[in-house]
Amino acid sequence: MKFFKRSNFFPLKKKYNINHINSLFKERIAFQNIENDFDVNDISSLKFIRNNSILFLEEELNDKRLKNDNIHVITKNINNKNYYKNITVVDNLSDTYNKILNSMYFHEDQLGFQDEFNYINGSYVSKYSKISNSSEIGKNCLISRGVEIGNNSIIKNNVVIKNSIIGNNVIVSDNSSIGTTGFGFDFNIRGSQFLNPQIGIVFIDDNVHIGASCTVDRAKIDYTYIGKNSMIDNMVHIGHNTIIGNNACIAAQTGISGSVIIGDNVTIGGKVGFAGHIKIGDNVVIAARSGVTKNIKDNSTVAGFPAIDINKWKKNLIRQKRYGH
Amino acid sequence: MKFFKRSNFFPLKKKYNINHINSLFKERIAFQNIENDFDVNDISSLKFIRNNSILFLEEELNDKRLKNDNIHVITKNINNKNYYKNITVVDNLSDTYNKILNSMYFHEDQLGFQDEFNYINGSYVSKYSKISNSSEIGKNCLISRGVEIGNNSIIKNNVVIKNSIIGNNVIVSDNSSIGTTGFGFDFNIRGSQFLNPQIGIVFIDDNVHIGASCTVDRAKIDYTYIGKNSMIDNMVHIGHNTIIGNNACIAAQTGISGSVIIGDNVTIGGKVGFAGHIKIGDNVVIAARSGVTKNIKDNSTVAGFPAIDINKWKKNLIRQKRYGH
Amino acid sequence: MKFFKRSNFFPLKKKYNINHINSLFKERIAFQNIENDFDVNDISSLKFIRNNSILFLEEELNDKRLKNDNIHVITKNINNKNYYKNITVVDNLSDTYNKILNSMYFHEDQLGFQDEFNYINGSYVSKYSKISNSSEIGKNCLISRGVEIGNNSIIKNNVVIKNSIIGNNVIVSDNSSIGTTGFGFDFNIRGSQFLNPQIGIVFIDDNVHIGASCTVDRAKIDYTYIGKNSMIDNMVHIGHNTIIGNNACIAAQTGISGSVIIGDNVTIGGKVGFAGHIKIGDNVVIAARSGVTKNIKDNSTVAGFPAIDINKWKKNLIRQKRYGH
Repeated sequence: MKFFKRSNFFPLKKKYNINHINSLFKERIAFQNIENDFDVNDISSLKFIRNNSILFLEEELNDKRLKNDNIHVITKNINNKNYYKNITVVDNLSDTYNKILNSMYFHEDQLGFQDEFNYINGSYVSKYSKISNSSEIGKNCLISRGVEIGNNSIIKNNVVIKNSIIGNNVIVSDNSSIGTTGFGFDFNIRGSQFLNPQIGIVFIDDNVHIGASCTVDRAKIDYTYIGKNSMIDNMVHIGHNTIIGNNACIAAQTGISGSVIIGDNVTIGGKVGFAGHIKIGDNVVIAARSGVTKNIKDNSTVAGFPAIDINKWKKNLIRQKRYGH
Repeated sequence: MKFFKRSNFFPLKKKYNINHINSLFKERIAFQNIENDFDVNDISSLKFIRNNSILFLEEELNDKRLKNDNIHVITKNINNKNYYKNITVVDNLSDTYNKILNSMYFHEDQLGFQDEFNYINGSYVSKYSKISNSSEIGKNCLISRGVEIGNNSIIKNNVVIKNSIIGNNVIVSDNSSIGTTGFGFDFNIRGSQFLNPQIGIVFIDDNVHIGASCTVDRAKIDYTYIGKNSMIDNMVHIGHNTIIGNNACIAAQTGISGSVIIGDNVTIGGKVGFAGHIKIGDNVVIAARSGVTKNIKDNSTVAGFPAIDINKWKKNLIRQKRYGH
Repeated sequence: MKFFKRSNFFPLKKKYNINHINSLFKERIAFQNIENDFDVNDISSLKFIRNNSILFLEEELNDKRLKNDNIHVITKNINNKNYYKNITVVDNLSDTYNKILNSMYFHEDQLGFQDEFNYINGSYVSKYSKISNSSEIGKNCLISRGVEIGNNSIIKNNVVIKNSIIGNNVIVSDNSSIGTTGFGFDFNIRGSQFLNPQIGIVFIDDNVHIGASCTVDRAKIDYTYIGKNSMIDNMVHIGHNTIIGNNACIAAQTGISGSVIIGDNVTIGGKVGFAGHIKIGDNVVIAARSGVTKNIKDNSTVAGFPAIDINKWKKNLIRQKRYGH
């Protein structure tokens, strides 16, 4: 997976000196200790630490990488405040995230996001995108800034691709939307303007097939990923931050919530749903219409809602039948 | 909610004098008593009575507002025929509705619906729409006649908006369709030409976020409504006449049938389905994958299909587990 | 149902003499006996035998139509090899199919598919399509080569129609995709380039209504069919090769897998799912949220997952309730 350049997709609106960024969220600050002096120009996650960045820390974690001259950790109330070189404790992390990100970045859920397009063969293609000449794009598509498309890929018609890196030999079918906004916000504070800015991307690896009318949401900070050779049917929704391994097969109308991690060689039937933040192992088979609510171990076959071992599920059905009629 | 001007969206094809409109459906008439003389120029519902209109009455109801010099009640066989000033009893209300509406109004499910468009920045925008200059529209969109869009709203790409009033600070994401035709017809008479003309609108209130690949059907006569600050994820379908309160949160792939009434502050998980014509109270939480078949009281938390109190649902699961393996 | 001309949709890339086509898949050949000499110019199915064609036979079948001077049967290992005049046994039928079809036909899941468009009233319409003047097409649509649209049909906005024959008085609503690629491939060999070429079409018969954001996949070799007067709601997915009879009513978010056969006058609720390759009789009613896994007899009413007789399903529910709380 690539370490992408965020500003290709989300231009920096303004750099903030670590000592001045406070002005954006000062009413939220409960504690602060800043030892270094640098210009903040990116956002880190625990997966990818970037220099001169802010890292929003959701839970107490003493990680050497965060004890760093170039990182500003913004967090909720935690015990070990002295561990970090640059730390701010705030009373509402989601709101602070929104205030900082909306001030630092241009993004599409805010007025004024800028892009410039060429109209090529019936589709709008950003001047700031990089598309291999060997790839083909149908009609009525929109390819926005920063998007990269590798070799020999086919983008069909009425497809929207934003904030994404697409590999080689990828097919994206009609009316699909790739790189759309993740459904992330503080559940207690609703309204379009309180969406957490989603400044990550979608990365679709080589030889992936994506059906018609699918949606793949971009990540909050890093990426939503679909691994090599994966076959995605129509009307599949893939939530933000979700990672799907190689050789997945996902049938129609399945929905995968945000931050799910799926291993390699997984086969998923139609209309399956996944709770967020769970982990599915390698070689797992999930029967159609299952509702997966917990982690699933490698090599399991599951069915039902909540999804359980398919043999147990079948036994339950037989038992119900016996008593039922 | 606004009392919208129907002809902004559905131009009148022809006004009919109350005494002449009979010609459209005379083979259906079983009884008629017309005391007044006026030109019919609108259609009423029990919610909004309009002057000089027809009201199609599905069930016997003695309501003073219908005992009116300016209303023509068309109904099935009822007992109290003398109650109304202008009444017609017909043997098939759906067919009569179709005959009258198709003759009175231009609408998009009939050939010859007229609109005129400007091609602005890559999208088709009706000359008969009203869009605030402070709002932004992406590429490959279609905004049709009568549509109003308030301030600071963002319509992304490949979005279709018809027959709708959109408030301020609303976001509609890629490939969504707003104001589409409600799935309404006499179940015993099928075929595209027997669709009941849907001459209502969609009203999306301020600060609503609508995800990608959603569909919101316009109402039959009044409106389908989404209340302030509501957050709608991707691939959500909202049926015609449905009313959703403020601060709703609705996760991906949920489908809400027609004529559902949902209160304020409701949280609905992914892949939930709703039967039509039910009422969901305020502050209700509905777990993912639930199938809601009945009214739900305020402050309830439900799960399962048919959806029941979540604690009962969990007990059922535990019991099944115990007996099952 | 019409016997369509395949090359209208999928131009022949190259004709192969039956004795030379071997070069495409020689490493797969286990046995071969060719008695005739002709140029292969089409593909047959067991439903429609075409002259000078190849028929890929999945299972042993002695059918007089295949004992023919103009047919080349390519199959897996079978017992009665001497029955056919022209037969090749291969070790991998799916891969052989891919190799032959990708060499013989241009199709949209391969680079270099050619079409030429006129931009008419805001939509791209292939020069090789045939659309009745009495039909209307909205904005931002794509109608590709070979498509035929009958009289008085309405294609709304942002609709993609490919590889399809559309009858009279058909309505296709916004953001739907008709004629998209069937989800067919050898489950053991994944990746976009291993999709089985889908060189069939979609045939939508007269008076059908298709809602918004639907997908109808074209057949592998013959057609996916929707019968007269059928009413399809929003976000319905119909898989490849599926046949739906007349007067169907299918509510929103239902998904029908590939190769399902559905009779006449069927009523299907919302969010129903179907396993592939099953047969549903006439006059069947399927309750919302059902998962249909087996054939259903004429005149049945079913519910649940797996779908069973609705009265049994209701009894089960009552029993669960009694024991549950």
